[in-house]
Amino acid sequence: MQKKYYLLAPGPTPIPPNVLAAMAEPIIHHRAPAFVKVLEEVRERLKYLFQTKTEVLMFAATGTGAMEGAVTNTLCKGDKTLVVRGGKFGERWAEICEAYGVVPKNIDVEWGEPVDPQIIADELAKDPAIRAVFVQASETSTGVMHPIKEIADIVKKYDNTIFIVDGISGLGVFELPFDAWGIDVLVGGSQKSLMLPPGLSFAAVSDKAWSFVEKSDIPKYYFNFKKELKNLKDNQTAWTSAVSLVMGLNESLKMIQAEGLDNAFKRHAKLAAATRAGVKAMGLELYAPTSPSDSVTAVKAPAGVDGQKVVKILRDKHNITIAGGQSQAKGKIFRIAHLGYFDTYDIIMVISALEMTLRELGFAVELGKGVQAAAAILEKDI
Amino acid sequence: MQKKYYLLAPGPTPIPPNVLAAMAEPIIHHRAPAFVKVLEEVRERLKYLFQTKTEVLMFAATGTGAMEGAVTNTLCKGDKTLVVRGGKFGERWAEICEAYGVVPKNIDVEWGEPVDPQIIADELAKDPAIRAVFVQASETSTGVMHPIKEIADIVKKYDNTIFIVDGISGLGVFELPFDAWGIDVLVGGSQKSLMLPPGLSFAAVSDKAWSFVEKSDIPKYYFNFKKELKNLKDNQTAWTSAVSLVMGLNESLKMIQAEGLDNAFKRHAKLAAATRAGVKAMGLELYAPTSPSDSVTAVKAPAGVDGQKVVKILRDKHNITIAGGQSQAKGKIFRIAHLGYFDTYDIIMVISALEMTLRELGFAVELGKGVQAAAAILEKDI
Repeated sequence: MQKKYYLLAPGPTPIPPNVLAAMAEPIIHHRAPAFVKVLEEVRERLKYLFQTKTEVLMFAATGTGAMEGAVTNTLCKGDKTLVVRGGKFGERWAEICEAYGVVPKNIDVEWGEPVDPQIIADELAKDPAIRAVFVQASETSTGVMHPIKEIADIVKKYDNTIFIVDGISGLGVFELPFDAWGIDVLVGGSQKSLMLPPGLSFAAVSDKAWSFVEKSDIPKYYFNFKKELKNLKDNQTAWTSAVSLVMGLNESLKMIQAEGLDNAFKRHAKLAAATRAGVKAMGLELYAPTSPSDSVTAVKAPAGVDGQKVVKILRDKHNITIAGGQSQAKGKIFRIAHLGYFDTYDIIMVISALEMTLRELGFAVELGKGVQAAAAILEKDI
Repeated sequence: MQKKYYLLAPGPTPIPPNVLAAMAEPIIHHRAPAFVKVLEEVRERLKYLFQTKTEVLMFAATGTGAMEGAVTNTLCKGDKTLVVRGGKFGERWAEICEAYGVVPKNIDVEWGEPVDPQIIADELAKDPAIRAVFVQASETSTGVMHPIKEIADIVKKYDNTIFIVDGISGLGVFELPFDAWGIDVLVGGSQKSLMLPPGLSFAAVSDKAWSFVEKSDIPKYYFNFKKELKNLKDNQTAWTSAVSLVMGLNESLKMIQAEGLDNAFKRHAKLAAATRAGVKAMGLELYAPTSPSDSVTAVKAPAGVDGQKVVKILRDKHNITIAGGQSQAKGKIFRIAHLGYFDTYDIIMVISALEMTLRELGFAVELGKGVQAAAAILEKDI
């Protein structure tokens, strides 16, 4: 039969039918009054998602675009920064800094572990000239959730330092309130809990960070925060808007508001807990047991099993896309995502498929054992 | 969260993305050369599905339309017929006969059981004036597969009698070769294994049945077989074609040809076997244990459990649509479909959901027990 595809990678994530339908409508012009009205709505809805009263800037680019903008708009050449490097996306912050002459001091955290906030407190105490601290809310490559609130509480004591958070795979999945926690720049992307294709990225910017923007001397053009803010106040984007994606965004943000952020957080927590219980019941170990993210569950491939083969069999025989390990974790882990448009049966399905796949690879799993453990969590308050 | 809907009712069945996309294309005129070309393709592909060299007529109507046409085009007022009544759709054959002055003799079969072909042999021997025998290949209301080949072998001995089969939920699911078995009229519908919305019905007509058409005196207009055949030879339909459905039909028939009928039969057999194993492992009984259809599995609600409540909880809490019992089976059974665009994980999902639902209704099922039994069948040759 023509394959039925199941997408459980940590982005892109499945797109709901109404969002697909909205994006399939005939395109309108990006300066047309009808589109300006959509942008006005989107602007308010993004504030709900980011839990902020400030404007959320939007770029026709994938997440890395807004990450780059967070560096180039707030810092100056030669600025010292602290970068938490506990995975592939932590490394990206360091790479962007270096590309623009910013000088990162890297805090190398063991992959699979969250950063200890005390290390950041100590580094800032040692060198208050540090201008920014960079971290991922959810480090997608390892399945770790970093302690954002704790780090924010530390950084906010320093007038000369801002806290820049990659929330691409964390926003909408777990608590990450921009205003309440005092984050300075929070970056998001469309292809995660926003249930959209890749192609939009976002940045919320605090007053403190805007004061940094005024002093920034790094060159920028496409990702120009001030220019975007000026346009956004007229319900426009500086450059051509990614019209169809924005039409979809308005729908997906409506869905998030209809569910309510608290309910979305609870749902993601439940799906993640069920996934973790399912894999543990099969005798597998989590790669990030200390602080697992509710966005994606990273699982250690058992002894004698190549994690890449797990991914390949799931893809080629079961038509299920999960993610393998990257860089140093390649072959050692596989990652099951559960962020965005996911429900009970996405988890039942992938756990059942994982049982069959591991059996095929010679790892002894009793059929139904993982499903049983996942279902025990999922059936509560269904 | 906005619900993710899962459709496991015996029609309409899920529609594959490429079929949805084909139907979403801008509509073309039903007499345009481009559409004539599509009808030419469809005409040949339908022969593959029906396993016939004869033409397959097509109507813009649901299955009951072609059923009516099978009666009104082949018979005369006052003709005697034999109707196998072992479910709601058997009753429909009798109702159509009566509406047009045809006189059915009803063979009432206990719901959940297949008809004994010997009864038909005996009736025809007793009264060779019987002009037609009506039966369902798959009686959707009870989940029974009737012995079509055996009945065809009996009827073909009578020159004065034709064999009219409702293959609406059987075609494409299990063996039903029109030419090889010598069926005289075989009716199909779009919303079953053809993976389309409701709105198209089909009828293959044998040479023997066409000779009956010549003598028929029952009034008909919309469902006029001769008129349709004449138009079909020019790759047209007599009336306006259901253009978008036909565009989708061409896609779904391509899918069926790409899979191959034999593979489709094996797939349906495997999904059905897994469903039966899953419900039995939960301690449930089949409603049609003697000759279960591979299209739909009818399950007896366990003592003390209302079958309608099973359907309701699955629908309202799990967003899964299965079917309840109809008429005399209402409340006593529920029906899980697995015909059309279904794979391994549709079955895993519905069995897992059924476990949770029965537990909520106070029926003791160990979580994962049904899934385990289903998975044991599904994981073979995946």
